[in-house]
Amino acid sequence: MTDLIALSAAEAAVQIARGHLSAEDYTRACLDRIAALEPKVHAFTHLDSDYALEQARALDEHQVRGHVTGPLHGVPVAIKDVFDTFDFPTECGSPLMKGRRLARDAAAVARLRAAGAVILGKTVTTEFAYFHPGATRNPHDPSRTPGGSSSGSAAAVAAQMVPLAIGTQTNGSVIRPAAFCGVIGVKPSHGLNSRHGCLLLSRTLDHVGVFARSLADAALILGILAGFDANDPDSRPGAPPDFEDAVEAEPKPRRLAFVRTQVWDKADLEARRAVEDLARRVGAETVDLDDSFAKAWVDHRVVMAADMARQFGEIVSSGRESDSSEQLRELLAEGAATPALRYLAAQDNRMRYRAGLGRILADYDAILTPATPGVAPKGEATGNPAFNSLWSLTGLPSLTLPLLKGEDGMPLGVQLVCAPGDDARLMRVARWLSAEVGAGL
Amino acid sequence: MTDLIALSAAEAAVQIARGHLSAEDYTRACLDRIAALEPKVHAFTHLDSDYALEQARALDEHQVRGHVTGPLHGVPVAIKDVFDTFDFPTECGSPLMKGRRLARDAAAVARLRAAGAVILGKTVTTEFAYFHPGATRNPHDPSRTPGGSSSGSAAAVAAQMVPLAIGTQTNGSVIRPAAFCGVIGVKPSHGLNSRHGCLLLSRTLDHVGVFARSLADAALILGILAGFDANDPDSRPGAPPDFEDAVEAEPKPRRLAFVRTQVWDKADLEARRAVEDLARRVGAETVDLDDSFAKAWVDHRVVMAADMARQFGEIVSSGRESDSSEQLRELLAEGAATPALRYLAAQDNRMRYRAGLGRILADYDAILTPATPGVAPKGEATGNPAFNSLWSLTGLPSLTLPLLKGEDGMPLGVQLVCAPGDDARLMRVARWLSAEVGAGL
Repeated sequence: MTDLIALSAAEAAVQIARGHLSAEDYTRACLDRIAALEPKVHAFTHLDSDYALEQARALDEHQVRGHVTGPLHGVPVAIKDVFDTFDFPTECGSPLMKGRRLARDAAAVARLRAAGAVILGKTVTTEFAYFHPGATRNPHDPSRTPGGSSSGSAAAVAAQMVPLAIGTQTNGSVIRPAAFCGVIGVKPSHGLNSRHGCLLLSRTLDHVGVFARSLADAALILGILAGFDANDPDSRPGAPPDFEDAVEAEPKPRRLAFVRTQVWDKADLEARRAVEDLARRVGAETVDLDDSFAKAWVDHRVVMAADMARQFGEIVSSGRESDSSEQLRELLAEGAATPALRYLAAQDNRMRYRAGLGRILADYDAILTPATPGVAPKGEATGNPAFNSLWSLTGLPSLTLPLLKGEDGMPLGVQLVCAPGDDARLMRVARWLSAEVGAGL
Repeated sequence: MTDLIALSAAEAAVQIARGHLSAEDYTRACLDRIAALEPKVHAFTHLDSDYALEQARALDEHQVRGHVTGPLHGVPVAIKDVFDTFDFPTECGSPLMKGRRLARDAAAVARLRAAGAVILGKTVTTEFAYFHPGATRNPHDPSRTPGGSSSGSAAAVAAQMVPLAIGTQTNGSVIRPAAFCGVIGVKPSHGLNSRHGCLLLSRTLDHVGVFARSLADAALILGILAGFDANDPDSRPGAPPDFEDAVEAEPKPRRLAFVRTQVWDKADLEARRAVEDLARRVGAETVDLDDSFAKAWVDHRVVMAADMARQFGEIVSSGRESDSSEQLRELLAEGAATPALRYLAAQDNRMRYRAGLGRILADYDAILTPATPGVAPKGEATGNPAFNSLWSLTGLPSLTLPLLKGEDGMPLGVQLVCAPGDDARLMRVARWLSAEVGAGL
């Protein structure tokens, strides 16, 4: 069983396709692992072992009958509980959405199902994918946060409960938990993965991202999720990047810009040293963001507060006070008090930051920057997204690689960021960086 | 000379291409017409006869040398003074932009130039393409408004000063002046024509439209303007409609929905009767917009006020009070006082109106509706855009045809509206409707 859960999704898919492994056995191995660790990790909010096995057996039968199978045939995937699913409730981490059931899958879930995935269950999210934590704990140390908001998805992949999971990021909700849990997290370019049927916080800031333990696995699931969807107003037509090709190619040397950003002093000394050290080892050149970027973090907050006030203001104010967190109510009040002019200025500034970063990335393959201010903090709070806000605001593709270690041997992520639409290059640079430091991701 | 100015752009382009007419002679005929009527009409704000003839001669030489020519080779086009041009000032109808010169053409102007057009001059716009009128008068009756904001473009085409002109619409600025001046005006689907290099009032509401005297001419210029431009964030990739094919096809019977809208009582009795009569003649079925559309006009105002406050608030408040109109300052103050939540609600409502209209248009080829509340009013004010706001807000393609007459024989437009992206069908329906009533447009 240990062998099965250690398989990558790509390896498992090949074994299943060749008939060397059944979807049922593979799914059972994941379920056994969950049974063993879930009492400590609390990654799932909706899980039904019988139903998961039923899906797996149906896929096995499908294959036995000689039907065409998809690239994830028989591979379990965990879904953050903000994506609509026809078969599980979708409660978005809020008592206000308790028992909410929907008739249809979100576009991302539908694509995974069409690719043959076993939709294993729904994972814990913070309240409305904002800050108020759910029950999930960090698999490396239960006294620490897994990060948020995609807490359960990151923890489940880190704990080898499942090889792949999906999540969302509006501020730092994919990169931060992935870094804290020591897995790969990818937040692709804004508009690459459809958000149709996914809890809407902010059209401007929301992204669908993935969690995996290898770059090949991340490429596999991204290749399934990416692509045009007329139901997402920010989706752009055009062929999606060839992710598998990107990670299979022989890595060639890459030019990195080491960007500390205006929030560098939020990182702890250990994290700063570790990332500086890595930057030096791989020949990254230090590039400072000038003062024109100074207000990006405030602009991110302005857009997020107003957009979330629009989405959640009524439901939260019409609910009982005990059914929402003070932190969320404060944000919504802030959003409700925002003038349209301030909001529109933030939107315009966003395009300027995007253009400014584009000018830097004209000279480098990618930006190297911390994923988080340090390792996962102890306690409940899900940690600081300061090193994620700029890339969420500008929609640049970013990923975190578990290349470093910090205090108590806890994982420390390293973030790479590319130009908008340059998602394939992002994977290529990640492959090279991983090889360069001997990590073999 | 009378013969030349009466030519359609399509006919002139053919004659020039065949060597039967020179660009210089054709341009001179337009300039002579302008010289005769401009003292009464005031359509142009920047015109340089020598420079126009210079462009025409260069195009003639180009052709004589056997170079490839574009579909508008040698045909003069007038440009609303809100499009950037490298060779003329771009003053946007405001003293605050007096003498403003830019290094590059707007995308629309660049496309026209590449197609071989003579960029004849810049036409009068109201102040910042909002309401405060410029000097232009209605060619049919100088005591009446030409409508706005694309006042000069509509009047120049109506007065046969030029066969084609371009303008912009944020509320009713293409359809209204076209209807008042008795020409064809087309406002295509939002995002079809690039707005790059064009005065920005509102990303949501701004459209680039055209003025022509025949459907073939409208199709000719739309075919040049339409198409993807990565510099316009709302431009969508994909092949543009085949406009020429649409107007050349044999007209077949069309199902029309006669939609009076919530502003029906703003139309005068004469206009209501004339449009009802036409609807009956062509077998249009009356379809009422339910109460869910009632606030669309207010939502349009909310978006326009906030977006324009963002674009013009600083420049207007930092200028002298005498350099802006009270009407504009009131709008900007209203926009500055708008909460982000109200703005975002209006944006969401907009998508609902769009979906609701899409449901109606699932059963009909097009909506038939008034273009204006009546004929061009006497005096300075540019008239009421009530019959245009809904289609500007929702981005549906619309056009007006000069099919009716009102008081004093003044032209009265009839508006057709299709589903988003259905611009080719819009032209087909227009061709059919024109044939049905024996107008031969």
